[in-house]
Amino acid sequence: MHILITGGGGFIGRRLAKELLEKGGLAQGDVIKLTLVDRAFPMGMPQDARLECIEADFSDEKVIGKVLGQQPDVIFHLAAIVSGEAEKNLDLGMQINFHASLQLLEMCRSLAFCPRIVFASSVAVFGGEVSKTIIDETGPKPRSSYGTQKAMVELLMNDYSRRGFVDARSLRLPTIAIRPGKPNAATSSFVSSIIREPLHGKKASYPVPLETDVWIQSPKRVIQNFIHAANIDEKILADDRVFNLPGLTTSIQEMILSLGQMTNPEVTKLISYEPDAFLESIVLTWPPNFDTQRALQLGFVSDTSSEEIIRSYIEEEGITNVLN
Amino acid sequence: MHILITGGGGFIGRRLAKELLEKGGLAQGDVIKLTLVDRAFPMGMPQDARLECIEADFSDEKVIGKVLGQQPDVIFHLAAIVSGEAEKNLDLGMQINFHASLQLLEMCRSLAFCPRIVFASSVAVFGGEVSKTIIDETGPKPRSSYGTQKAMVELLMNDYSRRGFVDARSLRLPTIAIRPGKPNAATSSFVSSIIREPLHGKKASYPVPLETDVWIQSPKRVIQNFIHAANIDEKILADDRVFNLPGLTTSIQEMILSLGQMTNPEVTKLISYEPDAFLESIVLTWPPNFDTQRALQLGFVSDTSSEEIIRSYIEEEGITNVLN
Repeated sequence: MHILITGGGGFIGRRLAKELLEKGGLAQGDVIKLTLVDRAFPMGMPQDARLECIEADFSDEKVIGKVLGQQPDVIFHLAAIVSGEAEKNLDLGMQINFHASLQLLEMCRSLAFCPRIVFASSVAVFGGEVSKTIIDETGPKPRSSYGTQKAMVELLMNDYSRRGFVDARSLRLPTIAIRPGKPNAATSSFVSSIIREPLHGKKASYPVPLETDVWIQSPKRVIQNFIHAANIDEKILADDRVFNLPGLTTSIQEMILSLGQMTNPEVTKLISYEPDAFLESIVLTWPPNFDTQRALQLGFVSDTSSEEIIRSYIEEEGITNVLN
Repeated sequence: MHILITGGGGFIGRRLAKELLEKGGLAQGDVIKLTLVDRAFPMGMPQDARLECIEADFSDEKVIGKVLGQQPDVIFHLAAIVSGEAEKNLDLGMQINFHASLQLLEMCRSLAFCPRIVFASSVAVFGGEVSKTIIDETGPKPRSSYGTQKAMVELLMNDYSRRGFVDARSLRLPTIAIRPGKPNAATSSFVSSIIREPLHGKKASYPVPLETDVWIQSPKRVIQNFIHAANIDEKILADDRVFNLPGLTTSIQEMILSLGQMTNPEVTKLISYEPDAFLESIVLTWPPNFDTQRALQLGFVSDTSSEEIIRSYIEEEGITNVLN
C-alpha cells in the first residue's frame, strides 16, 4: 500500500513515518511506498527505498495534485500552521489549516479513489467553561482561530466521508508532551519546555499559574493512536468520525514535582513563572477534563502518569547526567 | 441606521423587511435605509422610500462589495441554498452557503466597520441519535451538507466576532411552519405543505411515519426572534454567539389532528402518507427534543401549540371557507 503523510517533516510526521517503516505496514497491507510532503525536512531522515520526501508546500495545488494522482491508500493529514502562529496570522492559518484541507478533500472527490484519511485535529476546538468535563457529545467552542479552523475541517471530513468521497477519521489530539527539539510557536509549547529544557540544563518558564491543569498525551501514545485510527474497520464507525483522544489530566505543578523526584535539585530550579497575557488568554480556555468513552471503547490508548511521560522522554533522549 | 438583508426576496426576508419598515427600527436606531439583495423578488414588495431591492447574486463579489461599501449597521444574513438542493448539489451549496458567507465576513474585516450580523443557521446542524435531548452544549453532528455548511459558518461567525471584525449572532432555526406559498426544495417543506395545501383545497403528503416528531417555529416567532437577536446588547453576549431557538415539539399526527379540529372533514382527507427514502434518510436524523435554556434566558420566544400555529396561518391568509 501507498501511504502519504502531509506535514511529514514535522516531529510527529517523522516519528510516524519511522514507525510505519519499522512495523512494515497497517492492517490493510504492507507499506510499498511512503510519501512525506513538507516545506522542509531536517537532517537524518530514514534511509529507506520505500520512502520519498517531497520538499514543497502541501497547499500548492500542483504539488498535492501530483501526489494524490498516485492515489495513496491512506493519508495522514498532519500539515498545519500551529496555534500561536494561526492566532497571529489569520490569513495564513485559514489558508493552510482550512483551505488546503478543503482542497485535499476536493481532489480526493474529483479523483474518486476514496482514500482513508487520518486527520490531526486538536482539543483546541474546545474552549470556554473549563470547569466542565468534555464528553463525546460536547460541541466545539473554539477560543482561537486555530481551533476554529480544525473544527471546520472535522465537519468537512465527516460530510465528505458520509458522501463516500473519503473514509476519514479525525483525532482531537491533547497537548503533546514531551516534544523534543526546540520550543515552537504552538501556544502549548511551554508544556514540553518546562520539562525538556531543564533536562538539557536550560532555563524554561510557564506563562500560566502553577496549578493550571493540562490535558496531555505523549508522542509515543499519539503515534500508536494515529496507527490505530488508520486500522479501524470502516464498518464499525458510525457517521461521526471525530474522536477525543484519551489524554491525561495533570497540572504544571504535578509535572514539575515529578521531574523533581527523578532529577537532582538543580534541574527544577531552572523553571520559573513568567506570566504572559497572550498565552494566558488562550491556554486558560482549554478544558483539562475529558470523558473519552467512545475513543476508549474503540481501543485508543492513553498514558498513565506524568511520571511515566517524563521517564519515557528521558529514555528516548538517553539523558543520564541529571538523574537521581 | 442602514440595514441589509441578504436573501431579502425570500419569504422570511420579505416578512422581516416589512416588519422593520413598520416598526421603524431596532433598539440601536430608526431605519433610514433598508437594502435587500436577492436573485429575484416577487411582485408586491413594499413601496417605501427607505427600501432598495437589489436583484443580484449575493455571492458575486462586486455586488456584495458595493453594498458593504455603504457600511450597513446591521446585516441579516439569510441568503442560502435550501437543504434538499444543497444535498443534491454539493458545489452550489458550498459556494452559496459557505464560501459566500466567508466572503461576507472577509469583506467586513477588510472594510473594518464591524457590523452587527444576525445569521440564519439551522437545527440541521444536528443529526444522529434523535432520542437524546439537544442542550446548549450539544455539538453539531450534521447528517447533511446543508447542516455541515451552516455549522462551519457558525464557527466563522464566532471567530470573526471574537477577533472584533463583526458582532455576529447565529440563530439555529427550527423547521419553519407554516410557510405560505408553494412547496420548496427544503427537505422540511412537507411540514408546511401538509397544513397549507389542504387549507387551499389541494392534496399533500408526508414522507415519514405519522408519529414522527418535529421541532417547529411559526414565521411570526422567527421574525420576532430575528429582531430580538439584533437588539441584544453585545455586552451581555459571551464568546459563544450561537443559539438554539426555542421551537415547539409536535408530531405530524398532532398537526393533522389540530387541523382536523378546526376544519371540515374534507380537509384532512387530502393528506396522505407517501414514503420517500431520500427525505426519510435526512428528516429522521433531525432531533425533535431541545432544552433551549440560553435562548429563553436571553428573551427569545416560542409558540405554544400546533393549534396556535395553524390558527395564526389561517388568520394571516384570511382563510374562512373550510373552517368549522
